[in-house]
Amino acid sequence: MFVLVNLKTYPCDPVAVAEAVRDVNETTDARLAVAPQAAHLERVAETGVETWAQHVDPIDYGSNTGHALAESVAEAGAVGTLINHSEQRLKLADIDGSVQAAQRADLETVVCANNPAQIGAAAALGSDAVAVEPPELIGTGTPVSQADPDVVEDAVDAAAGVDSEVSVLCGAGISTGDDVVAAGELGAEGVLLASGVAKADDPTAALEALVDPL
Amino acid sequence: MFVLVNLKTYPCDPVAVAEAVRDVNETTDARLAVAPQAAHLERVAETGVETWAQHVDPIDYGSNTGHALAESVAEAGAVGTLINHSEQRLKLADIDGSVQAAQRADLETVVCANNPAQIGAAAALGSDAVAVEPPELIGTGTPVSQADPDVVEDAVDAAAGVDSEVSVLCGAGISTGDDVVAAGELGAEGVLLASGVAKADDPTAALEALVDPL
Amino acid sequence: MFVLVNLKTYPCDPVAVAEAVRDVNETTDARLAVAPQAAHLERVAETGVETWAQHVDPIDYGSNTGHALAESVAEAGAVGTLINHSEQRLKLADIDGSVQAAQRADLETVVCANNPAQIGAAAALGSDAVAVEPPELIGTGTPVSQADPDVVEDAVDAAAGVDSEVSVLCGAGISTGDDVVAAGELGAEGVLLASGVAKADDPTAALEALVDPL
Amino acid sequence: MFVLVNLKTYPCDPVAVAEAVRDVNETTDARLAVAPQAAHLERVAETGVETWAQHVDPIDYGSNTGHALAESVAEAGAVGTLINHSEQRLKLADIDGSVQAAQRADLETVVCANNPAQIGAAAALGSDAVAVEPPELIGTGTPVSQADPDVVEDAVDAAAGVDSEVSVLCGAGISTGDDVVAAGELGAEGVLLASGVAKADDPTAALEALVDPL
Repeated sequence: MFVLVNLKTYPCDPVAVAEAVRDVNETTDARLAVAPQAAHLERVAETGVETWAQHVDPIDYGSNTGHALAESVAEAGAVGTLINHSEQRLKLADIDGSVQAAQRADLETVVCANNPAQIGAAAALGSDAVAVEPPELIGTGTPVSQADPDVVEDAVDAAAGVDSEVSVLCGAGISTGDDVVAAGELGAEGVLLASGVAKADDPTAALEALVDPL
Repeated sequence: MFVLVNLKTYPCDPVAVAEAVRDVNETTDARLAVAPQAAHLERVAETGVETWAQHVDPIDYGSNTGHALAESVAEAGAVGTLINHSEQRLKLADIDGSVQAAQRADLETVVCANNPAQIGAAAALGSDAVAVEPPELIGTGTPVSQADPDVVEDAVDAAAGVDSEVSVLCGAGISTGDDVVAAGELGAEGVLLASGVAKADDPTAALEALVDPL
Repeated sequence: MFVLVNLKTYPCDPVAVAEAVRDVNETTDARLAVAPQAAHLERVAETGVETWAQHVDPIDYGSNTGHALAESVAEAGAVGTLINHSEQRLKLADIDGSVQAAQRADLETVVCANNPAQIGAAAALGSDAVAVEPPELIGTGTPVSQADPDVVEDAVDAAAGVDSEVSVLCGAGISTGDDVVAAGELGAEGVLLASGVAKADDPTAALEALVDPL
Repeated sequence: MFVLVNLKTYPCDPVAVAEAVRDVNETTDARLAVAPQAAHLERVAETGVETWAQHVDPIDYGSNTGHALAESVAEAGAVGTLINHSEQRLKLADIDGSVQAAQRADLETVVCANNPAQIGAAAALGSDAVAVEPPELIGTGTPVSQADPDVVEDAVDAAAGVDSEVSVLCGAGISTGDDVVAAGELGAEGVLLASGVAKADDPTAALEALVDPL
């Protein structure tokens, strides 16, 4: 299982969480990574943790101000990027452009979407993985695998119907190791999570509990 | 073949073009329709022509200001709607929402996209049809079926790979009957066009020339 | 006082409400108008009521799909338009473009904004009027003139500091005649309202109660 | 004069340009600063140069993915930020929110706008400075102070009419020391520039030529 910890713009110490992710990664067969803000990418990558960007723009080198260029994100140490997170929804043409920009810079891609139909759409764009996150469950602490297991299975089916190579991750409400196991049983190859680790008093303990059943 | 004439915000008389489309429709096996601005829908529909909206928003009845509600568009006489035209690009989640809103109001849907990958994505959302319009060809007078025939064939393949029921239309640069025939030979079941008819000195003659080889 | 009734995308009969606004307008010194959806503009204008658009886009005649062209809105019978309503927030450059488009088509303009600072900004763009609508009060039934009278006075001051000619309207939560009177006492020259009339069982009675103390 | 060098997403070495800006700053009475991409902020700030962000989002700590948080940008070493650059146009409400976010994090602010009317609007939002950049001149090499000097003077007047404290910068087409002097004579207290330095073979020489007449 792939466990990607999104630090959002939480008031956490990104380096401390990154070190926790890095250290717990060495104790488990699961693959752990962390996605900090752009301004924190370098410091986080220097810890040796697998580092992801939260977003890249559908642009190339050139006259763009305030954008996240895939090459700069990669040079700062990221090896992958989220695209179209529910807090950063993009136009269809721009998701396509961001996936292409990420691939140009050798970044792995996870395109997020709300429901199985959109997951099928995301899978058609050539991303390495897609992540289903029903917006109504984000931040609730109720995992999608429990609140609505059909959404995960339908997303896995929708993705497989379009591209048999694409992985499906499961987001929204994941906070315990049982949630991760349940997501895997429904066909997900990984999970996105955020506050359960980033806002934990002890991120290491939270991560250990999360990967323990894997 | 389905021929959909988009009036955009051209300075044409929408009723006069609508009447031309209506009259030529009666002389051909092709199916002709016209898509006026929202403020012109009622007057255009009253001519008896098949009337389409240019856009509907991903909303329901409620607190929305300046939006196109699918039910209102249908009530004004539209039987279908374009979604995600290259001049009205939407977020992926909003294309999904607009398709659902249109279906709720019994509007037929054509989702536009730039290239075969995005056509596959659009097809995954349950639209009745998709339309491929490479942005670099829009308004050039060079039809996509001639400038880049692979794009049309690849779009037809991409759509069929995702949903065997979805029709593919071909837009961008269509202006003659030969362009329409060529699009059909590449697998398209219809065409989108705009200035070739809407800005013609004699829209009836332009339409007659267009459907003559069909 | 100017009373502008925004019909939003409410499930009301736009013509019936328009007729109520028209009839009550003849019984009062206040000036009443109604803002229907674009697809309803013609039918509403035909009642003889003062008709406003809910939005116009910062465009001219040309290649635009799914947009509201100021000239088309005017031709359909509108004499004014809302711009930048809180449900249709625009980029600063586009508010400027929409005001210019409206003026080109001889439409009166009301630019909406959230707070006194933004009201000052809106006033700098040459609009005829600005409307202050704190987003947290919209749809609450608590009028801004009661919940936060300083916002109205500060908005009037901010507008006057930038352009001594611009009128200030007051929106959000207005539902009774007392609310309208209170808004006037704080310096507003009009009010925006919506559900209080558009969703009333008897719009005529609601309007009569509203204008009674004026 | 304040000279702010925007590195955009140009393929330059941000640290090398930052060192050039830092070194030339020590030789002149002008104040020089550099605005790199978010992912480069820390490395650039470590050179000791005055560092600016290209953009901050209208958000606070919390659930935001792919955004630039003012506090994180400041912690990475930025002391100011551009807002609403012509390549990153924002909604009016979001310019207001970004200015407030920047002030919360003690970042100096420059709000960009297209023309004198929008400059007046930007000045109403409490920014420290505004920058007028007619979009048609950006990247042309023709300075606004030469192509259209009235725009600069009108922008200075518009800003002063709204807020007597706000500084006006001049962007678009600035590439020589004479351009900077001309901008100053029209009332600007600084300039924004980009390619003239960031894409120069020798940024130090370009900067020296730029500040030489000051």
